Amino acid sequence: MTNTQVTLVQIDNYGPWTVTPEPRREADLQTLQSRLYADISQFVGNRGGYTFFTRFDNIIAVTNGLSMDDHELLQESVGNRYPVTLSLGVATGTTPVQALADATALVQEAGSAQDKSRRECLGGRTIDDGHRTTDDVQIAHFDVIDATGNYTDELNAFDTFIEIEQGYAELMRHMRHAHDSLSFFVGGDNIIVACPDLTDGDYEDAIYHVEDAVDVELQVGVGRGENAHEAGFDAKHALETCRADGTRVELEWE
Amino acid sequence: MTNTQVTLVQIDNYGPWTVTPEPRREADLQTLQSRLYADISQFVGNRGGYTFFTRFDNIIAVTNGLSMDDHELLQESVGNRYPVTLSLGVATGTTPVQALADATALVQEAGSAQDKSRRECLGGRTIDDGHRTTDDVQIAHFDVIDATGNYTDELNAFDTFIEIEQGYAELMRHMRHAHDSLSFFVGGDNIIVACPDLTDGDYEDAIYHVEDAVDVELQVGVGRGENAHEAGFDAKHALETCRADGTRVELEWE
Amino acid sequence: MTNTQVTLVQIDNYGPWTVTPEPRREADLQTLQSRLYADISQFVGNRGGYTFFTRFDNIIAVTNGLSMDDHELLQESVGNRYPVTLSLGVATGTTPVQALADATALVQEAGSAQDKSRRECLGGRTIDDGHRTTDDVQIAHFDVIDATGNYTDELNAFDTFIEIEQGYAELMRHMRHAHDSLSFFVGGDNIIVACPDLTDGDYEDAIYHVEDAVDVELQVGVGRGENAHEAGFDAKHALETCRADGTRVELEWE
Amino acid sequence: MTNTQVTLVQIDNYGPWTVTPEPRREADLQTLQSRLYADISQFVGNRGGYTFFTRFDNIIAVTNGLSMDDHELLQESVGNRYPVTLSLGVATGTTPVQALADATALVQEAGSAQDKSRRECLGGRTIDDGHRTTDDVQIAHFDVIDATGNYTDELNAFDTFIEIEQGYAELMRHMRHAHDSLSFFVGGDNIIVACPDLTDGDYEDAIYHVEDAVDVELQVGVGRGENAHEAGFDAKHALETCRADGTRVELEWE
Repeated sequence: MTNTQVTLVQIDNYGPWTVTPEPRREADLQTLQSRLYADISQFVGNRGGYTFFTRFDNIIAVTNGLSMDDHELLQESVGNRYPVTLSLGVATGTTPVQALADATALVQEAGSAQDKSRRECLGGRTIDDGHRTTDDVQIAHFDVIDATGNYTDELNAFDTFIEIEQGYAELMRHMRHAHDSLSFFVGGDNIIVACPDLTDGDYEDAIYHVEDAVDVELQVGVGRGENAHEAGFDAKHALETCRADGTRVELEWE
Repeated sequence: MTNTQVTLVQIDNYGPWTVTPEPRREADLQTLQSRLYADISQFVGNRGGYTFFTRFDNIIAVTNGLSMDDHELLQESVGNRYPVTLSLGVATGTTPVQALADATALVQEAGSAQDKSRRECLGGRTIDDGHRTTDDVQIAHFDVIDATGNYTDELNAFDTFIEIEQGYAELMRHMRHAHDSLSFFVGGDNIIVACPDLTDGDYEDAIYHVEDAVDVELQVGVGRGENAHEAGFDAKHALETCRADGTRVELEWE
Repeated sequence: MTNTQVTLVQIDNYGPWTVTPEPRREADLQTLQSRLYADISQFVGNRGGYTFFTRFDNIIAVTNGLSMDDHELLQESVGNRYPVTLSLGVATGTTPVQALADATALVQEAGSAQDKSRRECLGGRTIDDGHRTTDDVQIAHFDVIDATGNYTDELNAFDTFIEIEQGYAELMRHMRHAHDSLSFFVGGDNIIVACPDLTDGDYEDAIYHVEDAVDVELQVGVGRGENAHEAGFDAKHALETCRADGTRVELEWE
Repeated sequence: MTNTQVTLVQIDNYGPWTVTPEPRREADLQTLQSRLYADISQFVGNRGGYTFFTRFDNIIAVTNGLSMDDHELLQESVGNRYPVTLSLGVATGTTPVQALADATALVQEAGSAQDKSRRECLGGRTIDDGHRTTDDVQIAHFDVIDATGNYTDELNAFDTFIEIEQGYAELMRHMRHAHDSLSFFVGGDNIIVACPDLTDGDYEDAIYHVEDAVDVELQVGVGRGENAHEAGFDAKHALETCRADGTRVELEWE
């Protein structure tokens, strides 16, 4: 059974900071947001986790393998190198959505995202090393079948982007409501989803649901592991099997 | 009348590179993509343009103010510092979508996104300095009314994200099909749109369309200028007026 | 005759910031300093200049080609993205040392490096476009003859480093006192020097002076141009001639 | 007794890469080198180590606390995100110089720094967790007494730099030859030294040696710990004591 550890990373008082004393150059905000996300991705990724940019001022990560001390160090390091600070909530659950909901509540209880006195809160708990198993994390890696042939080399770049966004918007809602899963667009035509224990039937339903709703054809590789990197790497390999064999759903452990 | 210069930036052969000889660590791909985007944002932004991460392997920028030599330098600099290279297409048009379509075609004609022999192509043309006007670019900056109060401090972070994504997906299609505009989520609850000459009526229609379709309430500030930074900065100020006065649409020049 | 434009970049109040309220993690300070330097190197480099890390809290750049507006933009961009701010002094002179002395004085007059109320000062002047010539900048690129064979593959890495540092320390004093030049170690076994109009005799003297004083054998390629990049690129090519022909001094324009 | 774990990080085939097929823009090389160093500093620093930029193509780190798996991950991550790769040698010794010499030999045995077929070698061994003690690392943090008052606010920025470089060059040779220590300039007026077990008498000798030789007045704080960060943080605090009390040498554990 999955036991997903999820961390919500929220920049403190970011909205007001971006316009005080005056609005800041947009290109600088984009650079700041992207580089902050990249640093968090490295820190979490080097410990076997996955980080998703989400809304950039609110970043969601699957952090099985990271301790509370790790979270505190991340917070300190960012506070030393950026003009903003982070608050973090950490929780675990049998479904990713449950863990994320609890992580969010921890941050919300500490104070509003625009409360200028709420700085660098850190709350929650991680999974004890002794309680971790190789089933804790299930990662599904979806991509669009032959996106290059069907879209990238054919349509203008924005119409290709619209197709992929529509596919993502549909999948994200379906996976959240039907399966308490968290779906994230990660670039190109790729969507990575943190799932609880799902079956190939569940993944087939998801794929055909998206195809029926918005006419975007997805395939998916799924992996399991003690942390997001291990599960996700298996998922990547499973996706290669889809590409090689022409199948729509591959579970690495079957 | 607007005369938008749009650049499509496409990483050469990226899909194959990410899995050759083996799939690469996802956290590293995310870091690479984000930092590459951040660098392009700085380069373009320092010359008055705006860059949108889009799909990360395909990045769209509004580049009024950048010359072909500037584009060539960007390409060279990235080629010196990253394990991937870029192909660029540059075009102008009375609507952003038209310019983007022409820019895309230039890159597609040079070769497939997964053609391993297509490297560092650069095609197109920029607006001569003598032909630039302060009406060339129109930027609309939308955000969700009181996102913090309605969503961020209330729902779990993924459900907030779903709401904002649904609003974005709806706005992006409407603005593209009704107004040949290019819409980009830029973090938080913000969407920036490159538009042709639109009226406050057009913006009101867009806002109410999104509200009716997905129940997300937007407000918008709009600016015009010789380049994206000038237009976008005015748009940010207009958006502050919406926040201060409780209005839904503000055009900076009225 | 050379007309070097030099900019001194000084972080405001950095010493106190690094220990307030408590000392900060050293690895974070190193990361901050290096990434700030890298950003300045890109900004200046993309406009044809050269930036040298120097002491990291005080950075020296050869900025022929950058305007005061460019300097102001750099300052603004850094202020938007870092937890520190920059003060800048810009000056020109027939020798690099003279220009650097004037640039320094501008910053010193604005206030102490540890004056907590001195923030983001910008003073000085740049060369008018109409007055720029292809002789404005002279760059000499020195390296150690066969550093790899003589040192890197033979000695332990610190003893190799000592040799190169001793060579650099000797060259920097000689070039400053004999020739009003500014010398900077740029990594590996390379030293780049901003010079006034010097002759091959001057460069030979420098090389033999260092050889006699500390037994480190240098070769040098020298270039001239309208800006540091053009002069420096010619110098790199001249250095390749030294490597190919076994000569000690090569002036690209002879 | 100290037991320093030292890692030599060497970029594979860097010299040839910088000029193949043509020399590369210097500003891009500086940016690449600095950002690569910053990433290594974060990776090592987040595990309690210290990284010194040294020559940028050869980087020395004190890595007590990092395992061989950690080193392998660093190598893999850099290989995924940069156009160059790293070879690493890891060794331990009762003196830092001894450890660094052994680490260097491991890399040299794998192949020349300019051997184009030597890629991503990894050799050596780390200290078993069970054998680590709080005396393993001794870090001394030197700085120039009132550098701001004596130099930065008084001399031109290059003459200040010369003074600090001369002080560094003198200290580095003395500490290496008299005490098998590794000294690194870290920005500003700061020099950090990895030492074996030294006494306050040893540090006084070093300070007065430098003062006599080049007329630069240093003070020093010294710390010990299980890793470089712990030792170095104590050293920073000891240095604050020097500043507060006007003393020249402070050992944190006395």
